[in-house]
Amino acid sequence: MIQGHQSWVFANRPVILSTATVGGPFEANGPLALDFDTLHGDLWLGQDSYENAQKKMLEEACEIAIRKSGLQKQDVQFFLCGDLLNQIVSSGFAARTLAIPFLGLYGACSTSMESLALGSLIVNSRSGNNVLCGTVSHNAAVEKQYRYPTEYGSQKPPTAQWTVTGAGVALLAAEGEGPVVTSATIGRVVDMGLSDPYNMGGAMAPAAVDTITAHFRDLGVSAGDYDLIATGDLGRIGHTIAADLLRKHGLEIPIEIFKDCGLLIYGENQTEVLAGGSGCGCSATVTYGHILNRMKKGELRKVLIVATGAMLSPLSYQQKESIPCIAYAVSIENGRKE
Amino acid sequence: MIQGHQSWVFANRPVILSTATVGGPFEANGPLALDFDTLHGDLWLGQDSYENAQKKMLEEACEIAIRKSGLQKQDVQFFLCGDLLNQIVSSGFAARTLAIPFLGLYGACSTSMESLALGSLIVNSRSGNNVLCGTVSHNAAVEKQYRYPTEYGSQKPPTAQWTVTGAGVALLAAEGEGPVVTSATIGRVVDMGLSDPYNMGGAMAPAAVDTITAHFRDLGVSAGDYDLIATGDLGRIGHTIAADLLRKHGLEIPIEIFKDCGLLIYGENQTEVLAGGSGCGCSATVTYGHILNRMKKGELRKVLIVATGAMLSPLSYQQKESIPCIAYAVSIENGRKE
Repeated sequence: MIQGHQSWVFANRPVILSTATVGGPFEANGPLALDFDTLHGDLWLGQDSYENAQKKMLEEACEIAIRKSGLQKQDVQFFLCGDLLNQIVSSGFAARTLAIPFLGLYGACSTSMESLALGSLIVNSRSGNNVLCGTVSHNAAVEKQYRYPTEYGSQKPPTAQWTVTGAGVALLAAEGEGPVVTSATIGRVVDMGLSDPYNMGGAMAPAAVDTITAHFRDLGVSAGDYDLIATGDLGRIGHTIAADLLRKHGLEIPIEIFKDCGLLIYGENQTEVLAGGSGCGCSATVTYGHILNRMKKGELRKVLIVATGAMLSPLSYQQKESIPCIAYAVSIENGRKE
Repeated sequence: MIQGHQSWVFANRPVILSTATVGGPFEANGPLALDFDTLHGDLWLGQDSYENAQKKMLEEACEIAIRKSGLQKQDVQFFLCGDLLNQIVSSGFAARTLAIPFLGLYGACSTSMESLALGSLIVNSRSGNNVLCGTVSHNAAVEKQYRYPTEYGSQKPPTAQWTVTGAGVALLAAEGEGPVVTSATIGRVVDMGLSDPYNMGGAMAPAAVDTITAHFRDLGVSAGDYDLIATGDLGRIGHTIAADLLRKHGLEIPIEIFKDCGLLIYGENQTEVLAGGSGCGCSATVTYGHILNRMKKGELRKVLIVATGAMLSPLSYQQKESIPCIAYAVSIENGRKE
C-alpha cells in the first residue's frame, strides 16, 4: 500500500464463485430480463409491505447465490450488505434470517461495490472465506422513503431517475472457478454543491470521475486496459457529464466501452424511467447478471464497475444541504487464477 | 482463518496512535467528564440544527485525533465511520469536509467497534496506514429521528435509555506508540422477538452474549484473560440480562470486570438517563476516552469492548417488526509491539 493511494490490489485474486440477481416487473420488461435469475411479476412478492418485499428479494438472492455455489449456508463466513432503507433494515433482517456474521455498510447506491471491495479485502487477506456481498433496492419502498409514495403519482422532471427493484449478491471465495476481483478504489466524498434530488446523476458524476481518476493513477492503468467501464447509476444526464469531465481531465474513455448500469437496465421504450435507472440494486443486478454473463461468454475480459452513491437524506435535503456523493470502483477479470 | 470462526486475530497489532472524544452538556456533568478532549456546554455547538451539531462534533473529534497523532490530514488514508442519522449523513458530511477516502458503515450503536474492527483489518493486512475510525451520536438529533423531538417532553418508561451526545474516533497505524488492537469478533444478527424500542438494552443483551461466546470460542480465551469486558450500551436492564445469560451459558464474567459503557458514562445523580446511556457515541467516547486513559495509567492491561447495536428503524417498529440486534467485540492491549 503506497501512502496517498486509495486503491487495493488483490494479489490473491478472490473468486466470484457465484452470483444471484432478482428483479421486479419493470426489470422483467427491460432488455436485460434474461440476465436475471428470478423476476417477480408484481412489486409485493406476496408480502404485506414494500419494505418486506425488499427484504424478501435480498433473502432470495442470497439463497440462490449460495445454492449456485454448491456451498451450505453455514459455510459462508461473512455477509456484507447495505441498502437504501433507513437503518439498512432489509440487510439487518436478511442477516437475521441468514444468521451469518454480518457487516452492515452504507454507501447509498454505491453499496454494491463498497461491499464487493471490502469482501474482496477480507478474502484476499485470508481473513475469511466464502464471503457474501450484496445489496437491494425496491422502487416503491425507496421512492416512499426518499420522495413520495408512488401511489401519489407525483410528477417528476426529466432529470429524475427510476429506482431499480432488484437484489444482487456475489459469493466470494479464496479458491474456485469464476471471474476474479483484482483491485478496488475507495472513493472520497465529493460535493459540487448540487442540491436537487431529482438530478442525482448530475450530482454523482464528479464523484465517479474522481474515483476513476484515482483508480487510473493508483494502478497505473488507463481506459485501454478495460473492455468495459460501467458507472453505477448516473443515468443519461450524469453519464454525459462524467464523459465530459473525463475528457476535460484528459482521461477520455471511448464511448464504446463507457457505459452506465442505469442506462443498460431499461429500454428506450420504457419512458417512465426518465433519465435512467438508479438505486443500489441497479449496479448490483446489472453487474452480477448482465456483465458477468458477458464475461462468461468471453465477450468481456476485464471490466471496471464504478458504483456511485448520493449520500443525502430526505432531512438533509429539507435542510437545504447539498448532496455529498461517493463512488467505489472494482475491477473484475475473467479467467482462472494465475 | 478457521472455517466457522467469526474472529480476526491481528498478528501485526495495529496501533491506536491517538483518539479523540467530544461530549455535550450531559456528559460534562457525568463522572467521566475529565476523560473527554472537548466538552460543549450546549447542544447546538453554534449550529442551526441538531443534525449539523452532530456533524460538527464528529469533525471536531477527527481534527483533534489527527492533531494529537502529529500527522497531517493528507496522511490519513481511509476514514471508516457511521452514525445513527438516516443515511449516516453526519459521517457523509464529515467525510466531505475531510476529503479522505471513505467507507460508510452502519451497525447502529455498535458502529464504534464495527469501524475499529474493519479499520484494524485494513491496517493489519497492510492495505492501508493511518486509518481513522469513529462514530457520533447527538441526543436531540437522534431522539427526534427515532422517537420524538426532545422539546415535546414526552415521558419514557424506566427501561428507556439516554442517547449520548458524543463523538469518539481512533487513528490506527501500522507503527507507533500506543495501545494495540489484537483481535475482533464479528457478530451475527440476533433477535429474540423483543419489539419495545424503550427497552433496547433488553433486546441487545442476547446479541452481546452471542458475540462474547463466539469470541471466547474462536480465540480460546475466557473472562480471566481480560482486565475489563465492557458492553457498549446495554444499560441497567440489558447488562443484568447479559450477565444472567452468560452465567447460564457457564461463561460467568466476574462483576468487578464486567462493565457497561452506558452505565459508566452517567452518574447515579443523573436520574434523567433512566436505564443508562445509549447511542453509538456511548461506547465510542467511553472506550476512546475513559478506558484508554485507564490503560495508559497502567490500571488495565487488556480489555474487550463489546459494542451492541439495535438495527431497527422507526418504520420497522411501526410495522410491528421485532428488533434485530448485533454486537462487535474488539480486544485492545496495552504496551509496545512485540
